[in-house]
Amino acid sequence: MTKLPTQPYKGARDFYPEDKQLQNYLFGVMHSVCSRYGYEEYDAPILEPTDLYLQKGNEEIIKEQTYTFEDRGGRSVTMRTEMTPTVSRMVAGKRQELGYPLRWYSIPQCWRYERMQRGRGREFYQLNVDIFGELFVSAEHELIMLISDLLKSYGADESMYEIHINSRSFMKEVFFNRLALSEGKDADLNRLIDKKAKMPEEKFYAELEELLSDEDNSHEAVLLLKSLLSNRKTPNSLGDLPNEVLEHESLGDVKQLFDLCKASGINNVFFNPAITRGFDYYTDIVFEVFDTHPDNNRSMFGGGRYDSLIADFGVESVPTVGFGMGDHTLQNFLELHNLLPELTTQTDVYAVCVGDTYQAALDIVTTLREQNINVAFDVSNRKIEKTIKTAEKKGITYVLFVGQAELDSGQLSLRNIKTGEETEAGIDEIIQKLLS
Amino acid sequence: MTKLPTQPYKGARDFYPEDKQLQNYLFGVMHSVCSRYGYEEYDAPILEPTDLYLQKGNEEIIKEQTYTFEDRGGRSVTMRTEMTPTVSRMVAGKRQELGYPLRWYSIPQCWRYERMQRGRGREFYQLNVDIFGELFVSAEHELIMLISDLLKSYGADESMYEIHINSRSFMKEVFFNRLALSEGKDADLNRLIDKKAKMPEEKFYAELEELLSDEDNSHEAVLLLKSLLSNRKTPNSLGDLPNEVLEHESLGDVKQLFDLCKASGINNVFFNPAITRGFDYYTDIVFEVFDTHPDNNRSMFGGGRYDSLIADFGVESVPTVGFGMGDHTLQNFLELHNLLPELTTQTDVYAVCVGDTYQAALDIVTTLREQNINVAFDVSNRKIEKTIKTAEKKGITYVLFVGQAELDSGQLSLRNIKTGEETEAGIDEIIQKLLS
Repeated sequence: MTKLPTQPYKGARDFYPEDKQLQNYLFGVMHSVCSRYGYEEYDAPILEPTDLYLQKGNEEIIKEQTYTFEDRGGRSVTMRTEMTPTVSRMVAGKRQELGYPLRWYSIPQCWRYERMQRGRGREFYQLNVDIFGELFVSAEHELIMLISDLLKSYGADESMYEIHINSRSFMKEVFFNRLALSEGKDADLNRLIDKKAKMPEEKFYAELEELLSDEDNSHEAVLLLKSLLSNRKTPNSLGDLPNEVLEHESLGDVKQLFDLCKASGINNVFFNPAITRGFDYYTDIVFEVFDTHPDNNRSMFGGGRYDSLIADFGVESVPTVGFGMGDHTLQNFLELHNLLPELTTQTDVYAVCVGDTYQAALDIVTTLREQNINVAFDVSNRKIEKTIKTAEKKGITYVLFVGQAELDSGQLSLRNIKTGEETEAGIDEIIQKLLS
Repeated sequence: MTKLPTQPYKGARDFYPEDKQLQNYLFGVMHSVCSRYGYEEYDAPILEPTDLYLQKGNEEIIKEQTYTFEDRGGRSVTMRTEMTPTVSRMVAGKRQELGYPLRWYSIPQCWRYERMQRGRGREFYQLNVDIFGELFVSAEHELIMLISDLLKSYGADESMYEIHINSRSFMKEVFFNRLALSEGKDADLNRLIDKKAKMPEEKFYAELEELLSDEDNSHEAVLLLKSLLSNRKTPNSLGDLPNEVLEHESLGDVKQLFDLCKASGINNVFFNPAITRGFDYYTDIVFEVFDTHPDNNRSMFGGGRYDSLIADFGVESVPTVGFGMGDHTLQNFLELHNLLPELTTQTDVYAVCVGDTYQAALDIVTTLREQNINVAFDVSNRKIEKTIKTAEKKGITYVLFVGQAELDSGQLSLRNIKTGEETEAGIDEIIQKLLS
């Protein structure tokens, strides 16, 4: 028989207990903050009919990056690449029964077959938070507050990240009302601008000129866009936008959002017309959260307002604001800023049965467990040093020895193997010590 | 554009918030009980190289029930059908670094393409609990205690389920030492016996006679097996096994296990030679947990002792005891026995902004959130009745109205929409009420 490899499938992660502890910490904060804002958790199958992704979504991902195959019944299925199509399907399915505004969140696992790079894997988890049915800009404000609270809960402060916002409807006003560009040009422009940060400045402007070359206002358009795309960053303000666009109606919501953020004590929100987001479905305000760390000065995650995709299911659409945050990116951010806490095992004590005392030692272990103390019970009867080494490997702090002598005297021996401290005490005192 | 269907992929489940609440409850109990026994959580990718399943495992599942396909790099991958091959791979991968005995648990999602039937779906979650590196029967005892605590934590009592145990090594002694059957016959016998409960008695014995017809002791073998397979059920004892097998050495562990269960106050463990478990890898004691409900009197889940599969990865095997429990079966059991608790949303209060008081109302909401109260904030400014209906749909108990009058007087209005009770009070009193 061939020897099997012990590595997981390429691009995907095993979660050994120490990795799972970290994941539980990361997800625990998400659960707690989302619940605090009244968001309810939902979930869905990781396999979806391929049609769900074909109708909407990012073409590049569908054609090149999906795990798509036929099931044994001949149906084409795709492993989830993002949650938006799925959540739209679910909302459409119970459109009438749900109460709006609807606040939902989920931490689904997603799969994309892509080239491996830092901060990305083929398998990833992505916190998805959406509010359905809220027209007022309070929805954007709520999500920005939620993101701030989330990052603060991980220990981050406002110097470590920035929230950049833009407005798709503002850009539309610029493209069509101001510059009278030809119909449909916005999608191409958004896609090009979305890639700006990943290409040399010169190359970007060359492509921009090329893209606009067939426009009547080609020269004026390039100049105005240049000015917009180099907008000065000033917290909670529009920066130094040229006067000619300042009165655009679509900026009303943006200004109001800045006022609301300021009133909530959030001072790292900036207006950045270079933010467009890759997906076509965004309609109005979009935002991205940037890491300010010099080694990772890039966009971490984002979201925005869109008309929910539920019209694809034959029901009337509802306005939605949402964002998605990947776990690789988050972990990378926390590592760089030295924010990952020291994690410990859930096991409070390693109880060791010394000699032929199984039943009596088990009674003590059961008493501890009844007090909500987490106990691993070792009956291997190995040398004390070996047993301590085992407890050490598991990261457990306390070892409790229970032998005949301890049972006779009623004095148990509890050792803190991290400090070496030794306690000889009765069961009640041991319980108090372990609970404290 | 075609209208997309809103149903999930066939055989898989959507988890709307109320379904997710139930799942969080079911999993929460698992996490809590497993931690209490010192088990550490792990996880792994849902995609595995197909080879992992080809080398070991249930042939029927591999050939007919897997979701297997080629990724874009030409590798054959399979969606996880069970956790044992994966956990073996992970243990083998860090064989030296892990401390034994190793207690691990996980609640992985698994996929099998099978005919849909009650208590099963194509997608399911399965609690997996394993202890690696423990030779003594205390390992089986610990898992039986853990299962008892788990079911008790869901509200079950011993009258609702039975734990049936058997010993593969006892059956081997019977097959080969007592009956001198020909080599390799045990695998066929185990597989046939495993199916006994699913076929008519007559058909089973006809097939048994057929299977044994080429044996010298054919007649004696059928008689002895008949006697074993109709063993009388007596708690914590061997039942009425025929004298001729009572002295079999392999029964020593079984008897000891019964003594240990009795001493731990577990009185629903029975010896049942009809239990064999489908998988070939079991080596010694095996067990299955049966629902006693007349509408569902069948095996729910089980496990047993096996030499871990890590030898397939070129390292020395370790003795392991483990079990797996599916979520469909568990939920079915709890429903039948009326044990599902009434679940409620995580959202404590639905705060409603009345009129043009957004910023002041938000300040109150923020104060509540800072006290760890989960608040959904409604700024839709609809009629009071409509807002209450929304809160009702979400299953929220309290609605808090914040309008200019309330802000001026400092007296907020909190309504319990389940009882109709109304409280007018200052913010501190409201906080106390919501926290209690």
